[in-house]
Amino acid sequence: MPEKIGGASELRQDLVSGDWVVIATGRARRPHDFAVPRDDAFWRESPSCPFEDLQPSARLAYDARGNKATDEWAVQVVPNKYPALTDGACPVPRLHGPYQAIDGIGRHEVVITRDHARPLGRMHAAEADLVMRAYQERFQALAQDPCVRYISVFHNHGPRAGATIAHPHSQIIALPAIPPDVSRSIAGSRAYFERQGSCVHCAVLAYEREAGERMICENEHAAVFAPFASRAAFELRVMPRMHEARFEATSPECRRGVAEALAAALARLDAGLGGPDYNFFLHTAPLNGASEDAAHYHWHLEIIPKTAVWAGFEIGTGIEISTIAPEDAAAFLRDISV
Amino acid sequence: MPEKIGGASELRQDLVSGDWVVIATGRARRPHDFAVPRDDAFWRESPSCPFEDLQPSARLAYDARGNKATDEWAVQVVPNKYPALTDGACPVPRLHGPYQAIDGIGRHEVVITRDHARPLGRMHAAEADLVMRAYQERFQALAQDPCVRYISVFHNHGPRAGATIAHPHSQIIALPAIPPDVSRSIAGSRAYFERQGSCVHCAVLAYEREAGERMICENEHAAVFAPFASRAAFELRVMPRMHEARFEATSPECRRGVAEALAAALARLDAGLGGPDYNFFLHTAPLNGASEDAAHYHWHLEIIPKTAVWAGFEIGTGIEISTIAPEDAAAFLRDISV
Repeated sequence: MPEKIGGASELRQDLVSGDWVVIATGRARRPHDFAVPRDDAFWRESPSCPFEDLQPSARLAYDARGNKATDEWAVQVVPNKYPALTDGACPVPRLHGPYQAIDGIGRHEVVITRDHARPLGRMHAAEADLVMRAYQERFQALAQDPCVRYISVFHNHGPRAGATIAHPHSQIIALPAIPPDVSRSIAGSRAYFERQGSCVHCAVLAYEREAGERMICENEHAAVFAPFASRAAFELRVMPRMHEARFEATSPECRRGVAEALAAALARLDAGLGGPDYNFFLHTAPLNGASEDAAHYHWHLEIIPKTAVWAGFEIGTGIEISTIAPEDAAAFLRDISV
Repeated sequence: MPEKIGGASELRQDLVSGDWVVIATGRARRPHDFAVPRDDAFWRESPSCPFEDLQPSARLAYDARGNKATDEWAVQVVPNKYPALTDGACPVPRLHGPYQAIDGIGRHEVVITRDHARPLGRMHAAEADLVMRAYQERFQALAQDPCVRYISVFHNHGPRAGATIAHPHSQIIALPAIPPDVSRSIAGSRAYFERQGSCVHCAVLAYEREAGERMICENEHAAVFAPFASRAAFELRVMPRMHEARFEATSPECRRGVAEALAAALARLDAGLGGPDYNFFLHTAPLNGASEDAAHYHWHLEIIPKTAVWAGFEIGTGIEISTIAPEDAAAFLRDISV
């Protein structure tokens, strides 16, 4: 174990992006103090919930065993009724004076699980894996479109995390451009690979498993830890243990291990912090990216609980202030029995 | 005027950072629909407000005429009681396994105006300029510290923008590292300068004043416009018209023009959207930066109203989805009489 990291406040640098965060434990609260009261009205089951039934437009539907479903559906994927991007021919850049724009061509789908009251953190591993399998199948299908440069998979849980519907659902957006945060993550991984000759994510995982102080839990295929340069209180990373750049190429066994780890991580947050709102999202190598991406990138999930509001400092600088050390968050979550 | 920018959804690239945003007007609402109900309990005047009196620890206090004040204070600057960074010797990088950290050494101050119920958007130009003068004086003082690499000045208005106290106040944080968003802004400006031989911010301002469709208002020294690649609905940029990289070197006349433009911009948001929460912040060249920063950078203020919650897509990709075109936001705000 390395020396105890202390002091009232510390700036930590993310090894991949090079970005700084402030860990300001001088404002410290105990882990329980991060619990935020739940918005019961939001979560109440409503007869007008639009996600209760299998939709005719569904792109995919499984039953609980993962077979093609009709009435007995457990997971379905449908086109978003209010898409951020829409179908169309491959967009070409347009100039507006000095600026560049392209049409918002892409896809926007919603992954829905059947039970209104049971989010991923309350699912068994097999159920969570059905959701991950739906992500993966739709990812593979959308990746066939030559206009698509990146596919973003994400989940908003609760109103503070931007969800407008309580019924558990994830979203898949296929984009005609590589998002800036992904570009930076890829560039940082590539730079480390050029310096060190190895995958930075594999190096982080090996170090975290050895150091132990930021680890939450693991299984044969995946590990959950609090990142050294956590941007938010109780931020968690779910990482496949085997090196693999591309989510879509992951084996069913590894995918299931990640799904189990994701559900376990969310269950611990749920039990420890009283059901906080959160976002999680997938980072994976871009489609048709450079061939060396396979060597240096490593797909993973990031979970960001919403225990605080981003304010002017975060928005103006990109430096986030977290008020609990990831070591303390990890120790708290490790001790929760789920 | 360029052709009308249309279509259900468009990706636009920021000319400085290279980042993309999605303008998804297919989900369109009319400008009035962005008004968010005010949290009256938060704004109510409270006898326990900690910012009502002149504090003995004040680093600076002016009366309404800008003279050193005692009882008749109008603006004061005090150390933050719960600082994100604290005083100390210049920090040196420390290694923790593969990671790097430095002590959170710096300063954290609060700029307070006297009237609980009158934020910047309800101030006259001279009052707003007293606030900007307080920013500038403290900036100049904190810049003397050789450990300080960047000084972030920002303002959180309302609980959705991360303010915990209703009484109007801004914050100044002196940092021992250059924040990532500032690094990227500087790098983007430098790259444009190397390609084009001119300041990208001057080019944008000249184009916006000519095109007109994203302009809100201007005076002799400053202009307010909605950026082409707005990250948020009703995002506004307040830009000094004269090229100047460093806020701290700005003349009192220009500073007053910017203060007047800032107050006018906030007044229009306030009147048009029913008093929305917002953040604004300063971007300026880093202290002890490269000498060519003076040629390519251009300080400015950015205002981000909080009409929506950042969700998993934004957090996972860095691409923000704005549901009103900046041209429509600008047309709406231009027509408001204040």
